[in-house]
Parts: sequence; structure tokens; C-alpha cells
Amino acid sequence: MSWNQNEVTEMLGISYPFFQAPMAGGITTPELISESSNCGGLGNLGAGYMKPEEIKKAINEIRRLTDRPFGVNLFVPNVKGIYADEDLAAMTKKLSVYGKELGVEETLIAQEKDYKALYEGQVEEVLRAKVPVCSFTFGIPDKEVMKELRKRGCVIIGTATNVKEALELEESGVNMIVAQGSEAGGHRGTFHQEESGLIGSMALIPQVADAVSKPVIAAGGIMDSRGIAASMILGAKGVQLGTAFLTCRESGVAFVYKQKLLNSTEEQTTFTKAFSGKLARGINNRFIKEMRNQTVMPFPLQNDMTGPIRKHAAKLEEADFMSLWAGQGVRMAKERTVKELMNELTEETEMILNSSY
Amino acid sequence: MSWNQNEVTEMLGISYPFFQAPMAGGITTPELISESSNCGGLGNLGAGYMKPEEIKKAINEIRRLTDRPFGVNLFVPNVKGIYADEDLAAMTKKLSVYGKELGVEETLIAQEKDYKALYEGQVEEVLRAKVPVCSFTFGIPDKEVMKELRKRGCVIIGTATNVKEALELEESGVNMIVAQGSEAGGHRGTFHQEESGLIGSMALIPQVADAVSKPVIAAGGIMDSRGIAASMILGAKGVQLGTAFLTCRESGVAFVYKQKLLNSTEEQTTFTKAFSGKLARGINNRFIKEMRNQTVMPFPLQNDMTGPIRKHAAKLEEADFMSLWAGQGVRMAKERTVKELMNELTEETEMILNSSY
Repeated sequence: MSWNQNEVTEMLGISYPFFQAPMAGGITTPELISESSNCGGLGNLGAGYMKPEEIKKAINEIRRLTDRPFGVNLFVPNVKGIYADEDLAAMTKKLSVYGKELGVEETLIAQEKDYKALYEGQVEEVLRAKVPVCSFTFGIPDKEVMKELRKRGCVIIGTATNVKEALELEESGVNMIVAQGSEAGGHRGTFHQEESGLIGSMALIPQVADAVSKPVIAAGGIMDSRGIAASMILGAKGVQLGTAFLTCRESGVAFVYKQKLLNSTEEQTTFTKAFSGKLARGINNRFIKEMRNQTVMPFPLQNDMTGPIRKHAAKLEEADFMSLWAGQGVRMAKERTVKELMNELTEETEMILNSSY
Repeated sequence: MSWNQNEVTEMLGISYPFFQAPMAGGITTPELISESSNCGGLGNLGAGYMKPEEIKKAINEIRRLTDRPFGVNLFVPNVKGIYADEDLAAMTKKLSVYGKELGVEETLIAQEKDYKALYEGQVEEVLRAKVPVCSFTFGIPDKEVMKELRKRGCVIIGTATNVKEALELEESGVNMIVAQGSEAGGHRGTFHQEESGLIGSMALIPQVADAVSKPVIAAGGIMDSRGIAASMILGAKGVQLGTAFLTCRESGVAFVYKQKLLNSTEEQTTFTKAFSGKLARGINNRFIKEMRNQTVMPFPLQNDMTGPIRKHAAKLEEADFMSLWAGQGVRMAKERTVKELMNELTEETEMILNSSY
């Protein structure tokens, strides 16, 4: 097997089709991204929540640290969510109780922002900076955005959680499709009915690979060379790892979050909408448990509302109120440098795939 | 790669470590089981709901059709479930509405049976018949049962859905452990908290394989040689396929159920407790949808209560009231003989695992 005959490495100009997942919320530091790319993979900036000027700064810093390709991930805005005033009031009240408990001084009154304008500013910045790779989650970017990206030579990647979404992404003209299995940590990329997007990788990868002709990037539950080799055999041309990079020294996770990752087991992760309004997988904690029966606000309003609590909890190292996104492979997480991780992945995967079993 | 150096084939005296899953409810006919074994795999009788005399008859028939090893699967009885009288009354009422709609003449009044006595009778029959392999779901058989099985040379297999359960099974002395990923169709084998047993195969297989020294049999989402090869690379020593055997000509599924399997997609399966009281994955239908918010009776009382409706619906070919168990790989299901399936699996898996990729 030779990685340079691989469609993904060829199209992107990288050495190995191994992507560091674009985890949002300050985790994908320029150091994490640049080191992933410097080691021959593809580093990705989780820019979904970032302001255009923050994206600009991050891209400049990444480019200072590497001359290799890297990607930027954006959230395609959803149709504005509907909610009842009394549910908003109940959520505000519930969150302010936690705010008081934690000593949050910032106001917890909900302020719905113009999320569409934020996205447009983000796209503008990505276009201006001529980023080599742009991936999208939560939907399909419109034709105009895709056209402008293509003009600048950008490789476009979409995220699917079932075959239907993968087919729509292919139809839209993306260059590659991330197939996100239900094992994955963080937000589900599902843009159709939420329940339709919870397919385990073992079933998702071959079914998506059978349905589309664009290269499939497997994501969800992949932690080491076994997961990579298995994904390639199931039909993927590349892989995306989140949790495996989360515990790397270069990642931006808070100390207490990293400790939780290094000490959690596969059955301790759960799905919740409590932090952001959108379904996501993370390590179960008091906030998730106590919010189980509460009606949450739509994404990303709920995310903005819980922001002050999450930020303050991180400062206090209070894991019970942080969004501890993690995939079901978390038991395999190790603390190490990106270089150590990438070396292990490349050497061991080649060993598995090159040898008869 | 040589299958006869494989721990599982050696211990069982079979040619390939490929198990036909023990699907309960009349699906695993003696023809399906014997043909799976005759083709070099391991056929398994789903005997969880069967009376001892039915098991005896099935085993006799299997032995008439094959002299190869085969397995029998039993349900370890759970602690007697608790329920409120008003919930029982509400369920009886709800079910009788459906019963009337379908023209079910049988009474729908709940009759709790002595499930422990049934299990003891089943075990007695398995011991008497000296079956080569006995697998267990929903728990760990007690020491006395294991001792008697071992005395008769029976290979004992347990079912785990997370690492904790796998470790407990290993400790109990089983010979092999089925690791059931969340992709699997039918009942979850989980015997601890239900939510703790929904791990996707990509994450479950390596974590279980790392934790135990007994051979791991991967189950859940495996439909073809790609799934088998991927599972072996992830750490499994064998595989168990359910949905792939369901649509074989020798399986006992009703015509309308098979048609549903051949025409469904991965996102159409869902989890429900409505049919049996225990979480299981099947193709979504009217019954599942309308029972979403109903409090169900404990397993297997709920199963007995819905039995007349399911049986009558099968006669009427009314798929909306049948338990259409199916895994998330259902899009890959094909109608064919067991021989055609087994030939494809053995030839293609060897091709994948023997060639450098």
C-alpha cells in the first residue's frame, strides 16, 4: 500500500489521509493544527463559533507554524429555531441557579445573535485567506459559497451522518465526504431529522462508500491504527480523529477536561442537547443529568446561554458544568505529543495494511 | 492467514469463525442453522422464548441435517421487573385497541409466567442434549449451570455490550465473549444499566479486545467481508452476523418482514422497548411510533402481552404491528441461500486479509 496513490492525499497534497478533527471551542489551537499538518496529516481549525477576526488571527498563526495544507471548519446556519417564551424563561431561570452556585457574574439573559451574519463574515474571511481546505458541518453551503471557494482552489468537504445526507452532499459538488459514525464525540453533523443520523461506523462507512463516488473520510470511534485500517477496509479513503487529538499536549482543552478524558470509559459518554441545543456526545456529568427533562433552546442560542457557565466552570476546574465532548473510544485516549500520535498511526497502520493478516 | 490457526475455529472445531446469530422468535430454523454449520460456520438456535420440548425437537432436527457443531442461545432471566397496576391496565387497554383493529381473537389479558422455571427447563434440555455450544444473553449464567455445561464439553459464550460486562463474563469463566455493538439488530444484550450498553462496534471491539484475554466475537453492523475483515483487524477473533442471515432463503422470517428488510435503509431502524419491554433495534413502524410515550411492562411480560398482536399481524402481513428486528447495515441485505452468503464471506474475507491493501 502506498499513501501517495490515495485520492485524498493526492487531492490535498498531504502525506497521510489522517485528519485532526475540527473541534470547536478553543480546542484546535494553531499548535495542534500546524503540528498535525507538519506530521503529514491534515490539521483543521474548528471555527464554527469564531468571529472573522479571530479566524484571521488563527490562520495567520497556523501559516507562521506550517507551510503544509490545513483546513477550516464552519457551521452552516440552520433555519432559525422556534421556541416558546415560557421555555426561554424557564431555561434562563434554571441557568441562573447554576450561575449563582458557580459565582458567575456575567448576565445570563439570552441574547439571540445574528448567526447568519456571523457565518457570512466567517466565509468572507476564509475566502480572503484562501485556505486550502474548507469543511462544513450541519448542512450544505449554498452554490455561491461553493463557487467562490472553488475559484480559489479550495478543497470542499461536507459532513454526513447517513447515506441520504452523503448523496445530497455529493450532488452539491463537495470534493470529499466525512461520514460521522454515532461513536463520534461532540456535535452530530446531522442536517436531516436528528434520529436519522445515529449510525455506527461499522454500518455507516460501507453503506456511504457504496452510495457515493467521492472519497469518504471515516469519523467516529477511531483512536489508533486498528481503527484506521478497519475504516479503510470498510471503504473509507481517509479518517478523521477527534478524541485521539484532544488529549495531545498541543490541544487547547482545559486541564480538568483532559484529566476526565484520560480517566473515562466508553460507557460514560452520552448524548445531550443541554449545552448547545444540538445533539452532541460527551462525558456524562451533573449538568447533563439535571437538564435531562428541560426543554432546551435551539442551537446556537442554547450554546450562547450556557457559555458563561461553561467558561466559568473551566476556570474553576469544575467538570460538572463543562461540555466534556468525547467519543466512545475514550478509553484508548493517551496523553502525548501530536508527533508521537502521528508516528504511531502512520507506522502501525502501514504495518497492518501491508502485511497479510 | 489461515483460519485453522484461529482460536475460535480451533476451540469449536469449525472451518470459519463466522456465527449465524441466534435470533429468537422462529427465525433460526433448523435449515438455517444446519446450513450455516454445513458451510463451515456456526449455526445458532435462538431458543430464548422456546419451551424445552420445542428446543428438543429443534435440536433433533438440526442433528438430522448436520453433523457439524452448532449452538443454542438462552436468555438469562433478570430480576423480576416491577410495575404499577395502572400502567399494566393502561397497556392492556392500549393493546386491546390494536387487537380489535387487527381482529385478534386471543385474549390480551397479561399473564405473567414463571420465567425462571422456563429457563431452568431450557437449561436441562440443553444439558440433556449435550449441545456443543451454548451462548447466553441478558446476563451471566450461574456457576452451577456453567459447571454442568463444561462437564459435557460444551463451549460457553457470553454476550457483552461494554467493557465492564466483558470483564465480568471473563471472570465468570465463559470461553468466548460476543461484543455486541450498537449497530446490532434485535435486543441489546446489556445486563447493566441500559444506557451503558450502546457502544458502536468501531469503539467497542478494540476496547473489549484490549480488556479481556478470551476470544472476542464481534457483532453489530457486520454484513459482508469488509465488516468481517475490519472486525478482525479491530481485535475480534470471530464475527456474528444477524441481519445478513435474516434474508437468507433458509431463515424463518415472514414474507412481509423479509421484503421490509430488503427495502429498508440504515436510518429507518430505531430502538424501542414497545414489543418486549427490553431495548431492541428494528425497522420503525406505526406500533413503535404510537407506543413512544407509553410505559411498557418489564421484559418478558411485555413480550407475552404483545405476542398475539405480533403473531396475528404476521398472518395478515401487516408490517406495522410486527417486530421487524434489523441492524443498521440493513441496506446491504440480500436475498440468497446460506451457501451463497457463506461462500462470498469466506472467499472475499480471505482475499482482503491475505492481500496487502
